Amino acid sequence: MRAARYYGREDIRVEDVEVAACGEAQVAPAYVGICGTDLHEYLVGPTFTPVTPHPLSRDTIPITLGHEFSGIVREIGPGVSQFEIGQHVVVLPQTSCGHCSACKNGAENVCESFGFIGLSGGGGGLSESVVVPQKAVMKLPDNVPLNVGALVEPLAVAWHAIAAASLKPDSTVLVLGGGPIGLAVVQCLVALKTKKIIMSEVSKARQRYAREFGAHHVLDPKTYDLVAISRQLTGQDGPDIVFDCAGVPASIVTAFKAVKARGTVVNVAIWEREVPFQPNMLVLKEAHYTAVLGYKRKDFQEIIDHLADGTLKPGPMITSTIKLEDVVESGIKALIKDKDSHVKIMVEVGGE
Amino acid sequence: MRAARYYGREDIRVEDVEVAACGEAQVAPAYVGICGTDLHEYLVGPTFTPVTPHPLSRDTIPITLGHEFSGIVREIGPGVSQFEIGQHVVVLPQTSCGHCSACKNGAENVCESFGFIGLSGGGGGLSESVVVPQKAVMKLPDNVPLNVGALVEPLAVAWHAIAAASLKPDSTVLVLGGGPIGLAVVQCLVALKTKKIIMSEVSKARQRYAREFGAHHVLDPKTYDLVAISRQLTGQDGPDIVFDCAGVPASIVTAFKAVKARGTVVNVAIWEREVPFQPNMLVLKEAHYTAVLGYKRKDFQEIIDHLADGTLKPGPMITSTIKLEDVVESGIKALIKDKDSHVKIMVEVGGE
Repeated sequence: MRAARYYGREDIRVEDVEVAACGEAQVAPAYVGICGTDLHEYLVGPTFTPVTPHPLSRDTIPITLGHEFSGIVREIGPGVSQFEIGQHVVVLPQTSCGHCSACKNGAENVCESFGFIGLSGGGGGLSESVVVPQKAVMKLPDNVPLNVGALVEPLAVAWHAIAAASLKPDSTVLVLGGGPIGLAVVQCLVALKTKKIIMSEVSKARQRYAREFGAHHVLDPKTYDLVAISRQLTGQDGPDIVFDCAGVPASIVTAFKAVKARGTVVNVAIWEREVPFQPNMLVLKEAHYTAVLGYKRKDFQEIIDHLADGTLKPGPMITSTIKLEDVVESGIKALIKDKDSHVKIMVEVGGE
Repeated sequence: MRAARYYGREDIRVEDVEVAACGEAQVAPAYVGICGTDLHEYLVGPTFTPVTPHPLSRDTIPITLGHEFSGIVREIGPGVSQFEIGQHVVVLPQTSCGHCSACKNGAENVCESFGFIGLSGGGGGLSESVVVPQKAVMKLPDNVPLNVGALVEPLAVAWHAIAAASLKPDSTVLVLGGGPIGLAVVQCLVALKTKKIIMSEVSKARQRYAREFGAHHVLDPKTYDLVAISRQLTGQDGPDIVFDCAGVPASIVTAFKAVKARGTVVNVAIWEREVPFQPNMLVLKEAHYTAVLGYKRKDFQEIIDHLADGTLKPGPMITSTIKLEDVVESGIKALIKDKDSHVKIMVEVGGE
């Protein structure tokens, strides 16, 4: 079968690999989103991709990429009964050991050996077949198309980030950065009927998406004094919660300048390097800073439920659909070259 | 009267100043602790001391120092009835505007115009008389000596920091740095019957104090792998809470390496400059980072109550008692030269 495999920095190859024998469930990926993490691996990795055997998958690079994906169950192992062949599903890619302190405390998403199918080995979505444990398989309701199913993963990241922020119905929120995760955060905040959602984004295209998805105020931080306007729009000393989905040195500073006294800044970015940081930014406001990694099964299920009942309609996030053979040129490189006009590029691998 | 006044970096003068007319309460300071903040102002200030008129006190430097102090009420204004002349008191030095968003939300300690008597103008403890608002005056019970009363302020800082950490009776705690605030945190944790208190401190003298005040394990981070030992001592992936009372670039890194997944790091330090910071330290553990500034009236009162009932016995923190005239040579300079063998140097200003 064909698969897109990561060999190292700037080296992803679409090539023939053997089909793995079915364990608990064999899934034929249908649609696979290209994620910022894939770009990071391509540009500055290996970071999450294992250069020594990953403690859970035992794999090292080259590994198959693709961790945001939907698919169709093609084969099931003995004793597996929750789903049938032909079932439309999404794969929960995060893996955990089950026995470390974090896992035992219900924080399996920050398991000490955590990994992701499609990043840490164990196959990936960017291939014609992947074998996954049955607990990673989640049913996609009939009324949710497979390409939208591939958006469950980034939406679950946003959902999980919001859960870390103690959002209340009357919370005022500032979202920094309107990339795929920032826009996912906006959509989830809208689904949760958040009173005031302010988005800060420089790209005109992304500003348009933010408006379309329901942000109440969309501001270009190059034109506006974000801190002053946030105070004005929230009617207090700043938003209750700031989501840093930009993940650049300037966004941390803006986040803490903007957030209200005793407010919360949630980091939803992965960082390539150290940044200058003055802890007094927290001190002088008694601000809270937290960060999230991935999601929990519950987050995945809640996103699927909201897709099914129509509270979340993320379809317009898909700005382009390409073929597996074109993943590097029309996917990875297109995003690197022109990130601002895309939200999510979807790779169509198979389908029915 | 005599007063120790801050003129600028390395310029504190004990000199004659006029006695201010009594407003609501005139207090004769008895004992005044020298604080790390005083040292910062001396070495790298003006930081908290105002170079333009402070929004609340309207004062600029030179200002009288001394914000950790007890005293005796010498005069009271008309209509003041909560205390009498001769009453032993401690002064709550933190000042707030009362009308900003933070104040309105009960976060008056991070008021946008916050200040401290003895740092931002409005007089200070290092003088023979100070005029303060009646709400700043808190009664010291008869069984608490005046020199111990001057320790209420640093203990309230620690108490307030612990309140920010959601401490539970079975929490495991690592305290980084055994200076006055670190030792105050240990004492408050002991008073709260915390299950496991680990102190990290390089100075032998301070290690001894930490043991004396009840830390269960006292480790020299130059000798031990603090992260590994913390895991061993807590029986999980690290302490639930880490208090950073060291406030150096290395302590931030240690704090996040040591803290358990989803644990909390509380910064109890004031920082002179930016530090290198990698937000992934939070991401990979979904850790929480928060910081505290000062205290609330409630913290002050609870410390006074614990001193009265004997749960807190901080007397041994006082390692030296000096006279007002000697505050620079035997106080400030002694602490700069030999910080490690001192905990708290107390200036005896008056007394009965």
